[in-house]
Amino acid sequence: MSLKIEDTDRSKAPIGVFDSGIGGLTVVREIMRQMPNERIVYFGDTARVPYGSKSKETVTRYSRQIVRFLETHDVKTIVVACNTASAYALDELEKEIDIPMIGVVKPGAKAAAETTRNGKIGVIATEATIGSRIYNQYIEELNHGVTIWGKACPLFVPLVEEGLLQDPVTDEIAKRYLSELIDLDIDTLILGCTHYPLIRSTLGRVMGENVTLVNPAYETAIELREMLKAKGLLNEEEPGLGSNRYQFYVSDTTEKFIRFANSIIKYGILSAKQVNIEEY
Amino acid sequence: MSLKIEDTDRSKAPIGVFDSGIGGLTVVREIMRQMPNERIVYFGDTARVPYGSKSKETVTRYSRQIVRFLETHDVKTIVVACNTASAYALDELEKEIDIPMIGVVKPGAKAAAETTRNGKIGVIATEATIGSRIYNQYIEELNHGVTIWGKACPLFVPLVEEGLLQDPVTDEIAKRYLSELIDLDIDTLILGCTHYPLIRSTLGRVMGENVTLVNPAYETAIELREMLKAKGLLNEEEPGLGSNRYQFYVSDTTEKFIRFANSIIKYGILSAKQVNIEEY
Repeated sequence: MSLKIEDTDRSKAPIGVFDSGIGGLTVVREIMRQMPNERIVYFGDTARVPYGSKSKETVTRYSRQIVRFLETHDVKTIVVACNTASAYALDELEKEIDIPMIGVVKPGAKAAAETTRNGKIGVIATEATIGSRIYNQYIEELNHGVTIWGKACPLFVPLVEEGLLQDPVTDEIAKRYLSELIDLDIDTLILGCTHYPLIRSTLGRVMGENVTLVNPAYETAIELREMLKAKGLLNEEEPGLGSNRYQFYVSDTTEKFIRFANSIIKYGILSAKQVNIEEY
Repeated sequence: MSLKIEDTDRSKAPIGVFDSGIGGLTVVREIMRQMPNERIVYFGDTARVPYGSKSKETVTRYSRQIVRFLETHDVKTIVVACNTASAYALDELEKEIDIPMIGVVKPGAKAAAETTRNGKIGVIATEATIGSRIYNQYIEELNHGVTIWGKACPLFVPLVEEGLLQDPVTDEIAKRYLSELIDLDIDTLILGCTHYPLIRSTLGRVMGENVTLVNPAYETAIELREMLKAKGLLNEEEPGLGSNRYQFYVSDTTEKFIRFANSIIKYGILSAKQVNIEEY
């Protein structure tokens, strides 16, 4: 038995998701939870990770290659599960293709604009995302009465990847990065990088219980569901047993990715394939 | 007046140097100091940095593209100013080209083998370099009576790039990474990543004054000089005023590279050019 995707029923096609590496798996995890019927094709650019310290031009070129790769998998939508790529590349790429795209920035911005009570919002992210001021732009469009402060936190990703999720060093670095935002009396903090939800408890402890943490991965999955539903693309049926529900592709070799992925997604990645992304 | 390089006098050709990003500039600095007459063409793969967490296959593919690029500049030799690329790619690439290549690992290994008194050597480097066990292999070839311990230190590069050269956090991380090596009573420590000389004083303080730190960047410049001399390739004359003595190329945009480079090389980088390295 093979699962044939009819041209007339695009809802059965998979959702394409990409990130610079492994952080986007926090978005995949939310999609799996909120839309268990959906098939997913994930691409992690592990050979060129990270994006957050690189230029708009380079991040856009890399993202365009990945979009071309995902298109070869006949995806029904593409989720840019990376804040830096959402900030730098999404606007340009969605003009170039016909399938709908969604990034993590807009849903995170929307949630923050709706959450704040005192009108003071903080954003923590990579250098690139903060430099783009994209969160400021989206939040100000939605809510004129707010002030937004951005803070680049370049050490959080390496600390997460070193496994120091609960550690005095991560506490110390978090205190340094966040002290300005605490002094500014923000009541809402956007975790503007897909790695940051993994140190959510440290960030929450440092910020204190009066500050609401916004996780764009979670908000993106909600918005994705609404978008698919509105377009008649939501898969209402559970995929057959024979179908390949979750497919993972990376640009570097697969061992390390599989190890990390299995620590984030309880489903079990089982396998991943390597792709020469420079050829797309 | 134009400077024409005669086919018969290869000594006037530039030295090609490459690294995954900026760390290799510590090698460039040593070459400038020890061989002030030499012209240098540097390539930093800033769009795909870092290499130290990636696979042998990927690092070799990237290094091969860079070697092709440097060949278009008619270099007389290529210095692999990156420990990870020296560990993973040098053996394979030097078989593929006619010009002599030199990496940072062999000179560092040689200096350590000659330095140790108690036969206990430590190596700190990226995951990739430690995993390759290449320092062990070279040192054991030179000195059978030694024991070598390797320790991957993935947070040192981000800490250096964040500018925390003298900082309690860097001290704390250094103490954790180095404690095993201290307990093992090593008397020689190889700084097996080109970023590490920039936190030399922290590493020296943590290890204590009885441990000699070996800087492969320094040793490589010495060995390069000897090799060029032996092959009649050493430039004995100061280049003319009209010549372009130092040229810097990178794969990402240039601004950030120039800023960092100027903090390492007192000569002043002035300018750098961006190259699409995937086309090589």
